[in-house]
Amino acid sequence: MLLENIPILYSLDLIGTLVFAISGTLTAMDKRFDIFGAFVIAFITAVGGGTIRDILIGSQPVGWMQDLNYLAAIVLGVLLAYFMQRLIQYLRRTFFLFDTIGIGIFTVLGLQKTLTFGISPEIAILMGTVSAVFGGVLRDNLSNEIPLIFRKEVYATACLAGGILYVLLMKIGIPEQINTVVTILFIISIRILAVRFHWSLPVIQRRLK
Amino acid sequence: MLLENIPILYSLDLIGTLVFAISGTLTAMDKRFDIFGAFVIAFITAVGGGTIRDILIGSQPVGWMQDLNYLAAIVLGVLLAYFMQRLIQYLRRTFFLFDTIGIGIFTVLGLQKTLTFGISPEIAILMGTVSAVFGGVLRDNLSNEIPLIFRKEVYATACLAGGILYVLLMKIGIPEQINTVVTILFIISIRILAVRFHWSLPVIQRRLK
Amino acid sequence: MLLENIPILYSLDLIGTLVFAISGTLTAMDKRFDIFGAFVIAFITAVGGGTIRDILIGSQPVGWMQDLNYLAAIVLGVLLAYFMQRLIQYLRRTFFLFDTIGIGIFTVLGLQKTLTFGISPEIAILMGTVSAVFGGVLRDNLSNEIPLIFRKEVYATACLAGGILYVLLMKIGIPEQINTVVTILFIISIRILAVRFHWSLPVIQRRLK
Repeated sequence: MLLENIPILYSLDLIGTLVFAISGTLTAMDKRFDIFGAFVIAFITAVGGGTIRDILIGSQPVGWMQDLNYLAAIVLGVLLAYFMQRLIQYLRRTFFLFDTIGIGIFTVLGLQKTLTFGISPEIAILMGTVSAVFGGVLRDNLSNEIPLIFRKEVYATACLAGGILYVLLMKIGIPEQINTVVTILFIISIRILAVRFHWSLPVIQRRLK
Repeated sequence: MLLENIPILYSLDLIGTLVFAISGTLTAMDKRFDIFGAFVIAFITAVGGGTIRDILIGSQPVGWMQDLNYLAAIVLGVLLAYFMQRLIQYLRRTFFLFDTIGIGIFTVLGLQKTLTFGISPEIAILMGTVSAVFGGVLRDNLSNEIPLIFRKEVYATACLAGGILYVLLMKIGIPEQINTVVTILFIISIRILAVRFHWSLPVIQRRLK
Repeated sequence: MLLENIPILYSLDLIGTLVFAISGTLTAMDKRFDIFGAFVIAFITAVGGGTIRDILIGSQPVGWMQDLNYLAAIVLGVLLAYFMQRLIQYLRRTFFLFDTIGIGIFTVLGLQKTLTFGISPEIAILMGTVSAVFGGVLRDNLSNEIPLIFRKEVYATACLAGGILYVLLMKIGIPEQINTVVTILFIISIRILAVRFHWSLPVIQRRLK
């Protein structure tokens, strides 16, 4: 399935990239990076997850090197985050929605790409999740923070659950296009419900000294 | 040499993976990560070194993508670390032994794999060491700590010394299987002696301001 | 263009590697790493940028695995930094010059290598910059610091500007060898002027709470 052939998915993928770049730029502002540093963090937040997936499965040159629209989306994201701060604050809920759509799309596309490399569904589920969340892990790590997703929020879990659903539906013969839409909506729903009802995973700690 | 054909090495490699996953989970507990974060850290601790080696030499999809037993060993390690804390404390010495056997095996297997890619023995020695110790480097880095092995203990040094021994024995014509066993035992011995007699490398610091 | 065929560039590339290794070792001394940790940080500082570029474009085994002179330059750098501290302090300005020549060469060679993989000039400019500056990013990140180049100095910017100049001159038909020399001198000049006149990029921060 070539992404460029499915205009809606492709557009949403680019919008997800833009929103992730904005999120990276906001982190850079809090850390008082200069413009170059902000661009690097935005870039890594936006495409870091897909890049790690591509490297692990051996799909090189990595994806964003082959379609300049991703670079353009990131540059636009940095500029918007810097010059339109009032707008971004105003659109906070809209961005949450696009971020959530973004992880849904990144998960499914990452999973599908991994399967095309002849890799098992179990690993493909992990790679879908990596695609969606490891940009944020790299962003936090390079900003000298413990990655947020290691401690908070049902974020990666929504991606994992979505990946499992996708593989189950695939095995019972649901057509790819329907499966794609259903899984993305499922991930979005879990994420929204998790934020709405403050779901979180149990913290894991030692009971003994 | 296909690892799966040598049942003892293969079993020990899986046990090493399990023990490294337990070590990663213990770190995650100390940092109060949630279950997802603990799984990520356990995963990276267990297979991070071999993954970096595979990426550097161009062996993709990386190793653990092609044999689900590694994923199974990691999941089992996380569950054991969480539900069997008393047992793990009780088996502390046993785990030290398995961890030590683990770095011995990881070093030799990593070195051998690198050589099969037509890379020079000098670099293969480095890659053997990377296979054994970089999982821990990534674990510490993602937990926002300076990697332990940069400051303490003759750990990586045992791997380097073992790698040099392996290449020397290979050059004088010792058969691979004997060399494998001798080198692994050598690495284990150095590690145990180093801990027993508190060997450490000199700290390197500026003598001038 | 095979680097080994151009003795001056090849020599300068090795000298750049040596100087970067010295810089990494100095960081390790400040952090009180042991000798093994110092070697790892020196190694990553010296070849980390080119390694990330090679992995992203799919050039594996990565460059330094195929020419042991790079490993030799790094080992020499660590030894010099440790045993010749007075000399290094004395040669501080010389090292600044070699470091500056180093980023110029790393940028142009990284850009050229990326183009030979059929990747677009826009991405090649980024990869040239990554080659020059990401060794330092990894050094800082592994030392538990926020990467210096995210906050200070027109360092990466000189590489980006040089990369843009190179691509422009290439498009108007300037021969590769002339272009290489002109671009390297341009990057060196910008860097020296930036340090001399304290140029810096604006810090990016939130205007709103």
